[in-house]
Amino acid sequence: MTDFETIGLNAVEAKKELSCSSVDLRNSALMLIADSLEKHKRDILEQNRIDVKTAEKTGMSDTMTDRLYLNEKRILDMADGVRKVAALPDPVGIIEGGEIRPNGLRITKISVPMGVIGIIYESRPNVTVDAGVLCLKSGNAVILRGGKEAIYTNTILAMIMRDAVAEAGLPTDSVQLVEDVTRHSAEQMMKANGVIDLLIPRGGAGLINAVVQNATVPVIQTGTGNCHIYVDSSASIPMAVDIVDNAKTSRPSVCNAAETLLVHKDIAEDLLPALKKRLDKSKVELRGCELTKMILGKSVVPATEEDYEKEFLDYILAVRVVDNIYEAIEHIQKYSSGHSECIVTESVSAAEEFQKRIDAAAVYVNASTRFTDGYEFGLGAEIGISTQKLHARGPMGLREMTTYKYIITGNGQIR
Amino acid sequence: MTDFETIGLNAVEAKKELSCSSVDLRNSALMLIADSLEKHKRDILEQNRIDVKTAEKTGMSDTMTDRLYLNEKRILDMADGVRKVAALPDPVGIIEGGEIRPNGLRITKISVPMGVIGIIYESRPNVTVDAGVLCLKSGNAVILRGGKEAIYTNTILAMIMRDAVAEAGLPTDSVQLVEDVTRHSAEQMMKANGVIDLLIPRGGAGLINAVVQNATVPVIQTGTGNCHIYVDSSASIPMAVDIVDNAKTSRPSVCNAAETLLVHKDIAEDLLPALKKRLDKSKVELRGCELTKMILGKSVVPATEEDYEKEFLDYILAVRVVDNIYEAIEHIQKYSSGHSECIVTESVSAAEEFQKRIDAAAVYVNASTRFTDGYEFGLGAEIGISTQKLHARGPMGLREMTTYKYIITGNGQIR
Repeated sequence: MTDFETIGLNAVEAKKELSCSSVDLRNSALMLIADSLEKHKRDILEQNRIDVKTAEKTGMSDTMTDRLYLNEKRILDMADGVRKVAALPDPVGIIEGGEIRPNGLRITKISVPMGVIGIIYESRPNVTVDAGVLCLKSGNAVILRGGKEAIYTNTILAMIMRDAVAEAGLPTDSVQLVEDVTRHSAEQMMKANGVIDLLIPRGGAGLINAVVQNATVPVIQTGTGNCHIYVDSSASIPMAVDIVDNAKTSRPSVCNAAETLLVHKDIAEDLLPALKKRLDKSKVELRGCELTKMILGKSVVPATEEDYEKEFLDYILAVRVVDNIYEAIEHIQKYSSGHSECIVTESVSAAEEFQKRIDAAAVYVNASTRFTDGYEFGLGAEIGISTQKLHARGPMGLREMTTYKYIITGNGQIR
Repeated sequence: MTDFETIGLNAVEAKKELSCSSVDLRNSALMLIADSLEKHKRDILEQNRIDVKTAEKTGMSDTMTDRLYLNEKRILDMADGVRKVAALPDPVGIIEGGEIRPNGLRITKISVPMGVIGIIYESRPNVTVDAGVLCLKSGNAVILRGGKEAIYTNTILAMIMRDAVAEAGLPTDSVQLVEDVTRHSAEQMMKANGVIDLLIPRGGAGLINAVVQNATVPVIQTGTGNCHIYVDSSASIPMAVDIVDNAKTSRPSVCNAAETLLVHKDIAEDLLPALKKRLDKSKVELRGCELTKMILGKSVVPATEEDYEKEFLDYILAVRVVDNIYEAIEHIQKYSSGHSECIVTESVSAAEEFQKRIDAAAVYVNASTRFTDGYEFGLGAEIGISTQKLHARGPMGLREMTTYKYIITGNGQIR
């Protein structure tokens, strides 16, 4: 492939056919991709070894290298994931509404693909297939721009997808990979107005912030989760312990993990020791307010303002004792990234107040924040979790990768 | 009011109450605004005279001055418009979907206000009330930043709204006007991440482009309409003449007016003379391709590439004869701004093909493009017409001024 201008033109050309293709064609492309991934697993592993070796040579951390690394199982899982997307219902052509107006105009609102979606992402090569396939399924041409550390792996994965798309009879350029992995190509994507209808950054806070700051094309901001759990005075203590433990320790590196615990003062003396006992099993570091320290003793690190602001993504939990639910709500309003917030309570009124006043994509009563996920929400798949309010909020599935148009039929109406 | 930072903090504070206020409170604020506009019409006219005088002194064009100018009737119309918005259904708290998951989690997707909406607009002072009231109705705090030419009028209108909002028992800062009308304040709004959830520019192409280029907050791009009418070989000629005439001449300055006519070659010799006769009545200048000139003679100005690209917003129509529907579709794909496109045809197949392949907010068969409008679509009101695909497309009513959140209730579920 070639410079970004050509990639852009190719995508615009490809979307014309792709966006009005039948779902049967799109699904057959997906099935061919799945088959081809399995068939070429050795070739993929070979290319992946080159990336992994380079990573090791340049002293990349073990965690990062692991994200880059593929093995046979990971490839088979990838293929399996593609077949699952093929089995999902078509998000295109759904009639979302409409009416016959008094003047006889028949207005129908119908879901259609966005057109061209750009994805800028970091090391994980599975995003290449994941994002590519979700875009194809939803009738969108996709421009993929992965990190340079995965370029060999991404190149073969993109090639496999392009071949399968062509074999299915869809435009080859429905899937394109930007091979120029300099900062320049990312910047070109951010400014590709008239070409890219939607740009989704997937990766760390630095990447997402750079895209939000610099893009002139429409962007969906994803993935920052400074999630809170508030344990109300009326809460069941065993339930609260289970939920906080699960939300913090089941997978601390993901955006729906809990970062701060707020505890009503009337329950703090009972809850905190029980909770600490549980969290000690996973060696969770607690950073607490004065009262937390008084209850739990010296092992608790004092919490700073920064601790409340931070998405630890680690075995660390900030803890603050509050006077009442309103102080908890105020804390969350101040520090929340609008991702997932939870109250543990037996009081219907407290639950209602919390769900009404908290402004986040997902507001939980008595369940772990870890459920904020496309699969768990029944969307079947997700391209990311939006933390903005425009267009999509929370898990974005196939439906959120479409827009709509109005088709209007008349018999000569003028105004 | 004071510097933008304070305005931002005030808005964030105000939205906390406003966003979960009852629709009765919001409607009573609207009714008080309507009453107060009528009661203070003399004061408003007095302030408006200052703006109009300044405009005349600085040599503003008559068209611009007319947009600025208020009289008693225009104020009464404004009040009337506010009452109509009060009568519309509440867009907040609508349950958009949900399910009980296999694990027992009850997930409900519910419409909620965006939070804080910023509007940057030009001379028309009626936008101040219009936008202010639509934001209030949809539970959004609004930051209004009008043009300096209307500052006296906007100031009194904002004051009237703020007083009414306070009288109704809602936070006064639900409505704020930016009194610093320098470029600086507009730039601050464009970068107010964490404060402004949605920024809507309303005005000419220059303003909209500046916002799209510079904003880091989510933006809805509105209002550019390079709309086409394609007259197919099977079209009814009288219907085509009526539709083209209406779409071009009923109000040429608006975004849903037609700018280019495409005509199938088999009907061109019959249609074009009849159409020219009709358009001559409104002194429409035709800019045509070679074939158009051959049919209509020397009075037709030759069309340039630029004519096809341009939104004339005037009594000018570009005309091109095409070989078939695919040449028409290709032309539209190349030049369309994605606003409103129309085919006039008696062929079901041509109508289907056109509505399927054209990627625009509104795709018409046998009706004037002038219907792309919130009122005509049955939305009751509109804050603008989106020409982007993210979030909202075409006329944006109250529903499009909301986002959603998921409220999830469990009984201790962990993952």
